[in-house]
Amino acid sequence: MNIKADRPRSVWSGPAVAHGGNLSAARRLFPDAAGPWIDLSTGINPLAYPMETLNVPASAWTRLPEPAEIERLEASAAAAYGAPDPRGLVAASGTQPLLQLLPQLLPARRVAILGFGYQEHPASWRAAGAEVRIVDKVDELTAPGTEVALVVNPNNPDGRLIDATVLREVAESLAARGGRLVVDEAFMDVVLPSQSLAPQLPPGTIVLRSFGKAYGLAGLRLSFAISDPATAGQIRARLGAWPVSGPALAIGTAALADRHWMEAEIARLEAAAARLDRLLERAGLDAVGGTSLFRLVRSSDAAGWFERLGRAGILVRRFDERPEWLRFGLPGPEADWRRLETALRD
Amino acid sequence: MNIKADRPRSVWSGPAVAHGGNLSAARRLFPDAAGPWIDLSTGINPLAYPMETLNVPASAWTRLPEPAEIERLEASAAAAYGAPDPRGLVAASGTQPLLQLLPQLLPARRVAILGFGYQEHPASWRAAGAEVRIVDKVDELTAPGTEVALVVNPNNPDGRLIDATVLREVAESLAARGGRLVVDEAFMDVVLPSQSLAPQLPPGTIVLRSFGKAYGLAGLRLSFAISDPATAGQIRARLGAWPVSGPALAIGTAALADRHWMEAEIARLEAAAARLDRLLERAGLDAVGGTSLFRLVRSSDAAGWFERLGRAGILVRRFDERPEWLRFGLPGPEADWRRLETALRD
Repeated sequence: MNIKADRPRSVWSGPAVAHGGNLSAARRLFPDAAGPWIDLSTGINPLAYPMETLNVPASAWTRLPEPAEIERLEASAAAAYGAPDPRGLVAASGTQPLLQLLPQLLPARRVAILGFGYQEHPASWRAAGAEVRIVDKVDELTAPGTEVALVVNPNNPDGRLIDATVLREVAESLAARGGRLVVDEAFMDVVLPSQSLAPQLPPGTIVLRSFGKAYGLAGLRLSFAISDPATAGQIRARLGAWPVSGPALAIGTAALADRHWMEAEIARLEAAAARLDRLLERAGLDAVGGTSLFRLVRSSDAAGWFERLGRAGILVRRFDERPEWLRFGLPGPEADWRRLETALRD
Repeated sequence: MNIKADRPRSVWSGPAVAHGGNLSAARRLFPDAAGPWIDLSTGINPLAYPMETLNVPASAWTRLPEPAEIERLEASAAAAYGAPDPRGLVAASGTQPLLQLLPQLLPARRVAILGFGYQEHPASWRAAGAEVRIVDKVDELTAPGTEVALVVNPNNPDGRLIDATVLREVAESLAARGGRLVVDEAFMDVVLPSQSLAPQLPPGTIVLRSFGKAYGLAGLRLSFAISDPATAGQIRARLGAWPVSGPALAIGTAALADRHWMEAEIARLEAAAARLDRLLERAGLDAVGGTSLFRLVRSSDAAGWFERLGRAGILVRRFDERPEWLRFGLPGPEADWRRLETALRD
């Protein structure tokens, strides 16, 4: 008998997977950069949902979230995502706790992930002891032996969008032999909501949706899993009685019901992404992919651009595994657009 | 190959474990009650930390929490709890995600819990397949074969406080044969901080602390695990890169550093609990236990009192497993004290 914690690791000194949004690290890297920093290293909407127009009650802070409030949030999200059965939709404090429970819920040994993409997916399956294959083609997701297939759709960072019809076939092929498909639709809201699998969920499929990116409220920590009601019940049981904070409940319920804002936002973000494309093009940087929340650039001088922009106080996302890539998020205020324009010209 | 979700359960229709704080259910139970409802069914400080005096930046909502901010929160919590090594302290979105990961972190088959207490503890170990013994005496925690022993200290709902010296002996006895002690100190802040194990953690011990109860901000979802740095690293890895929301980070960091507020609060809550004792006593209800955030009453007419108070729009906590018990939280505003006084007199 020796109840040590499993899989000893060294003491943590930062997240295991690199992410955008780390301005503290940027400040250390470019101590002489002209401030204030403009963070273009994430794919978060820079113009947040106007939550100051909502009347968030004090009880959202002081009281434990109630089951009836969680149900209302989930109903609001089901309507926003076109999920026909709200019982199949489960709220969580961001996508991360969902990624971490998936390998427990679906104890697969062989997992195929359409790559190259968001690194937390392979990391959480590998940490759970699964054998993860990163594949290039959709066909390979259904290779013999694959128990769980995972697709980020649209993909981050290249924006690759797999047609819903194709994903349905993958799901059915996997389901026919007891396998499951997981589709992370973190960036779907502002891309092509019609391509979401949520309105007509194929058998055995779990869809993940992120609130924070499209609504520009990443600090709130709010995401959803959409699945059949039985799987949803198991996810709920694992997340426990208070899966999201009171402010996330109040703000999420109201914002998700505001279809008018989201429709205007889709158009506004498309225009902003096109404006970013023009700036990049003038600098000789071609966007090779992306969504309307970010653009991916491929350049043999990616490292040089990262440096020049960093010295100008503008943080973009580089990728250790893809040294020629840079991801540019959207500037928000007009002044930030101008600083980016200047930095790209210099 | 058949990757179904493990342990099929029926569709969830409310939390598996009953909790206080469910006013929606109270409204259904007492549709004609005089409003507004006074919720005394939890042990949450009714006078919340004055967070409106804090300058929570917009970025707490809009940006992903940064590693450096999480480190600052954890340093603030370590100082508040007297934990000598901040690397051993890990922030989480409430105690619930910590309870849910403990059985994965410590894959014990035989668990002993000092009862009767907070029901989420046995529920999460049993859901993970462990054999849970609820024991009455501290001695039984170290019975042969026990791999993990769990104590809520002070206990909820009876307030039983086990001396730190005794718990140290339990921890050492377990550690000597590879076992571990978990101490949930959710109500320690306002009781006897000097009895916390955090300042001098015995070998193999994990201490859980709750922010929301003492600071009256349960909706914020913020708790901490305190352990040796290696175990803390494993907890961090499992919680992922953004374990708490931006608002929880900003408010928690500032509030935990405000020792002046907490010291005044300890005295104020003691006085409020004594005032509650007097009201209960006048009604012929003797408090048989509790902490300064709640009192436990034993009465052969507990069901009758629950009904009478409910009809008066006052929700107290009853326990299916202990039909003679009622838990009373503290009223906040003076008007609530008066309504409780009137309801107890009628």
